[in-house]
Amino acid sequence: MKIDPGMTTLQLMEEMGKSGVLGAGRLYRATKLLAELMGDEETTLFLSVAGPMVPGGLRKIIRDLLADGHVDVLITSGANLTHDLLEAFGGSHYRDHNETDEQLCQMGMGRIGDIYTKSEDFEVFESKINTLLGEISQKEDHMNIRQFLTEIGKCIQDPESIIHTATEKNIPIYAPGIIDSMLGLQLWMFTQENQLTLDAAGDMHELSDIVYGSKKVATVILGGGLPKHYALASNILTGGVDAAIQVTLDRSEAGSLSGAPLEEAKSWAKAKCESKLVTVIGDATIIFPMMVAGALELINKKND
Amino acid sequence: MKIDPGMTTLQLMEEMGKSGVLGAGRLYRATKLLAELMGDEETTLFLSVAGPMVPGGLRKIIRDLLADGHVDVLITSGANLTHDLLEAFGGSHYRDHNETDEQLCQMGMGRIGDIYTKSEDFEVFESKINTLLGEISQKEDHMNIRQFLTEIGKCIQDPESIIHTATEKNIPIYAPGIIDSMLGLQLWMFTQENQLTLDAAGDMHELSDIVYGSKKVATVILGGGLPKHYALASNILTGGVDAAIQVTLDRSEAGSLSGAPLEEAKSWAKAKCESKLVTVIGDATIIFPMMVAGALELINKKND
Amino acid sequence: MKIDPGMTTLQLMEEMGKSGVLGAGRLYRATKLLAELMGDEETTLFLSVAGPMVPGGLRKIIRDLLADGHVDVLITSGANLTHDLLEAFGGSHYRDHNETDEQLCQMGMGRIGDIYTKSEDFEVFESKINTLLGEISQKEDHMNIRQFLTEIGKCIQDPESIIHTATEKNIPIYAPGIIDSMLGLQLWMFTQENQLTLDAAGDMHELSDIVYGSKKVATVILGGGLPKHYALASNILTGGVDAAIQVTLDRSEAGSLSGAPLEEAKSWAKAKCESKLVTVIGDATIIFPMMVAGALELINKKND
Amino acid sequence: MKIDPGMTTLQLMEEMGKSGVLGAGRLYRATKLLAELMGDEETTLFLSVAGPMVPGGLRKIIRDLLADGHVDVLITSGANLTHDLLEAFGGSHYRDHNETDEQLCQMGMGRIGDIYTKSEDFEVFESKINTLLGEISQKEDHMNIRQFLTEIGKCIQDPESIIHTATEKNIPIYAPGIIDSMLGLQLWMFTQENQLTLDAAGDMHELSDIVYGSKKVATVILGGGLPKHYALASNILTGGVDAAIQVTLDRSEAGSLSGAPLEEAKSWAKAKCESKLVTVIGDATIIFPMMVAGALELINKKND
Repeated sequence: MKIDPGMTTLQLMEEMGKSGVLGAGRLYRATKLLAELMGDEETTLFLSVAGPMVPGGLRKIIRDLLADGHVDVLITSGANLTHDLLEAFGGSHYRDHNETDEQLCQMGMGRIGDIYTKSEDFEVFESKINTLLGEISQKEDHMNIRQFLTEIGKCIQDPESIIHTATEKNIPIYAPGIIDSMLGLQLWMFTQENQLTLDAAGDMHELSDIVYGSKKVATVILGGGLPKHYALASNILTGGVDAAIQVTLDRSEAGSLSGAPLEEAKSWAKAKCESKLVTVIGDATIIFPMMVAGALELINKKND
Repeated sequence: MKIDPGMTTLQLMEEMGKSGVLGAGRLYRATKLLAELMGDEETTLFLSVAGPMVPGGLRKIIRDLLADGHVDVLITSGANLTHDLLEAFGGSHYRDHNETDEQLCQMGMGRIGDIYTKSEDFEVFESKINTLLGEISQKEDHMNIRQFLTEIGKCIQDPESIIHTATEKNIPIYAPGIIDSMLGLQLWMFTQENQLTLDAAGDMHELSDIVYGSKKVATVILGGGLPKHYALASNILTGGVDAAIQVTLDRSEAGSLSGAPLEEAKSWAKAKCESKLVTVIGDATIIFPMMVAGALELINKKND
Repeated sequence: MKIDPGMTTLQLMEEMGKSGVLGAGRLYRATKLLAELMGDEETTLFLSVAGPMVPGGLRKIIRDLLADGHVDVLITSGANLTHDLLEAFGGSHYRDHNETDEQLCQMGMGRIGDIYTKSEDFEVFESKINTLLGEISQKEDHMNIRQFLTEIGKCIQDPESIIHTATEKNIPIYAPGIIDSMLGLQLWMFTQENQLTLDAAGDMHELSDIVYGSKKVATVILGGGLPKHYALASNILTGGVDAAIQVTLDRSEAGSLSGAPLEEAKSWAKAKCESKLVTVIGDATIIFPMMVAGALELINKKND
Repeated sequence: MKIDPGMTTLQLMEEMGKSGVLGAGRLYRATKLLAELMGDEETTLFLSVAGPMVPGGLRKIIRDLLADGHVDVLITSGANLTHDLLEAFGGSHYRDHNETDEQLCQMGMGRIGDIYTKSEDFEVFESKINTLLGEISQKEDHMNIRQFLTEIGKCIQDPESIIHTATEKNIPIYAPGIIDSMLGLQLWMFTQENQLTLDAAGDMHELSDIVYGSKKVATVILGGGLPKHYALASNILTGGVDAAIQVTLDRSEAGSLSGAPLEEAKSWAKAKCESKLVTVIGDATIIFPMMVAGALELINKKND
């Protein structure tokens, strides 16, 4: 690898590709595969996002991938959707605090690694989401989770919001574990006095239609957990995904799905035997921006 | 630490306690805390189980903890429940295969690390669970997930089953991500032609009643994911758990909840400021059996 | 796995062996292999110790393995030898401090994870080791590192000391990176005004004689680093070790030797193609005591 | 973070800096600090390199940092020096092999992760290095390790070699564990019939002179092991380094120095209390090229 100051992200990654080994090699191969998947009209591209990727600074990147038509299906956690709404409602994420967790609690601040949130922002979130829940439940009191998120997307105006942009662009968001989040908590409290049922199984009808209707399916997986499993498992009925890229710091030895090598999915027919699979070990807030920057530049270069 | 051949598990762990540092120190403190929590009648003890703990050999340990009244609430993944049923229906988990994932797929075997499953066992599972779903949905076509699992527990006879034992002992099982599992897949396929709605929000009513009705709440967390978050988040309305023990190989730097230090939960009021929190870094299939063996021996010793 | 309170360490590990998968399975296999290696008179058993294993509470376990003839060669870091001497000279390791690293520095305390050392203990160490260096250099001013450690072992009286016990039992200690430790620092300062040369290459003559003179060689590796590489590399001339057990939390993806799978050693002829290799992922302060307790109990059982 | 296709590496990293949290935030801060240290004439900059960084593709980057005067002292392993010489003598590193380790062994190929070496290259290495050892030992038969490496640097011609470039530029290379490598093995075999003694303590005289002669010292640490400890420990007599950057995938819980947080060095006076310390968790073959590209671009920008 040779460094030239001022080199573009892709140029740097091509140096990594020339070396081709260890993490650098894997990152380059993942980036090339991502460009290929984004550029292939026959491939339906899923993006699975676990971990604090919205508070961790990837909100805009994910939103732009949706806005620009690069991603066809988003699968994520209730927490990332909560944080997207928090920002849509004017809240923010904070940094550079030195207080202990006990002090933060007393200050009304929640901590995610070195990211900080304020309870005022959550209060605004609660009040606004309650209004939305009221509006939505009047239109319809039984829906699947994807429909619920689409309805929310219609109600909010922030053009930078992932949920809003997905609604605009007609891109489905699935969040099988939505109930386990601040958004889920508000939903539950709302349903103590109001009628609004979310039908998790309903999403699977839709998602399986998408899978059956796709020539090829590929998925990019940031972190593990439910979003990883859901993306892979939803492809089981057609023999598995055609390609997958995974970015994680989890390890495989204790058997958790989050750290499992993608190859394992082949045994379950969640990835096709001939599928293209690349895992990059690293922090997604570093690796994913690089990969996206490299892939977009590669696509632009090819289009020239 | 001094090793005497033939020493009991507790004696070994007391040697670790004398050293008191690094992993050995943490394991000893976690074991002492576990014994204290199990022995405290005022504490409602949650057990959160993510990762392949049933296929990984912990089925009997978890079942016995329920049977002997040591655990009051179980929170786990759909996958662990699926594997519990798989064994209840006569299936098994296999080991010592050297085939590639492609070959395993052709042989009809699924891989979880070095654990193997057979498609025949899943076929039996599918057929049996479908019969059960038919029976259950005739009694009631709308229920929360906990009720659904209780109904399953009533229908199966295997005394070694976690679900069966929980039902027998009146211990609730929560599985907020149940839909994302083989059990969830069967449920979805069943609902394509039958009526059976699971209401995820419904569980939260129950769980919050349990939390409000407890003098103290503690949780043991194996792995991370939804079960970890659900256990902690369900205590937010009362200011957080009074104690927690976590066993994980995940790391904290990328901000994922699974790897987050328990102390972070204090900032969110998911753990009380004065709560007792111990994390042990390691493989739960090693650490949890040690901890349980040590804690039970400690309780027996105190009772003598 | 089934837990019976009061079960011995071996009984617990046999339950892990019945499960046989993930970490529990690996730990059981490593323990059985360790018992086999300890009990085999044809096998020369190396023990490689990196990481703060002496301050971490394993001093007595390592010392007893030497005293009881279970280990034939010890390879370790200068730091572990320094801490062995620190205790031999009356110093200790401390715990339960909450100060920041800045405060510790001002208090004269060094931190290793949650282990603490006092500068007074190091002052005693410096004064005593200097006296020893004076005595040793008068006898001989050019020696290899193993000889140097044997000379130290002759001078100190603490029966609990690893260095003393190794000398008593005629077991060689190799420490190829000795210069990079407090002991090395004292050595260097001594040599500014005195004559004492340590010849690192000299150890390799001896070590290669040991390897050539052994029917079989096996090694137990705690942590990675120089001690791991040195143990494996010293067997390259005879085609590699016959067996190896490794306990580590390091991971393999970035290519570091410390995290490398033992199988990689086969490609380098540092482990024989038919060698028995087991890696356990975990904290050595937990895993090694378990493994030793299990192996010794197994050996006793066989001898009954 | 916002991605613009074609953005330079620095522009991408500045987006990470705007987010400022988790890995992205740490990488940006490390990059800014690196630029500051490189640009500061009062700072003596050490580079500590453990792990297979030369086979992993960083040879050219390290060589260029030396050639361009950005690094003042290099501390590394015998293995990296061996691989530098292997390439200087016409050998190479290979990739894309699917053989098992047993097969590789029979083919005469050694594996480092997904990097492969050929025994022919090592045979050339052995023959050439033996010639050099003969030449060098005739000039001088007792020297410290740094002098030995300088002598080698004089003998080889490859302008891309790290050792050659260091010699050209008068930059010292320290390799306290040199004996534990193929280079060390050849050295040992040479000394069985020839006279050539390397004095490890001798390096410390030199290194301590460098530390005492520097207004400020900073170190960049790739991986852990001996090179990390040596860099930090050599600053203990002046109260510690003024700044340090560490890139590693190792973790801290088991207490190993390799995974230890840099803050721990403060307690030992190996880092000053007011020192600037940044750790980035990740694969150095990804992180270090990014950091260097970003820092060089930042320096160029400032100079404009």
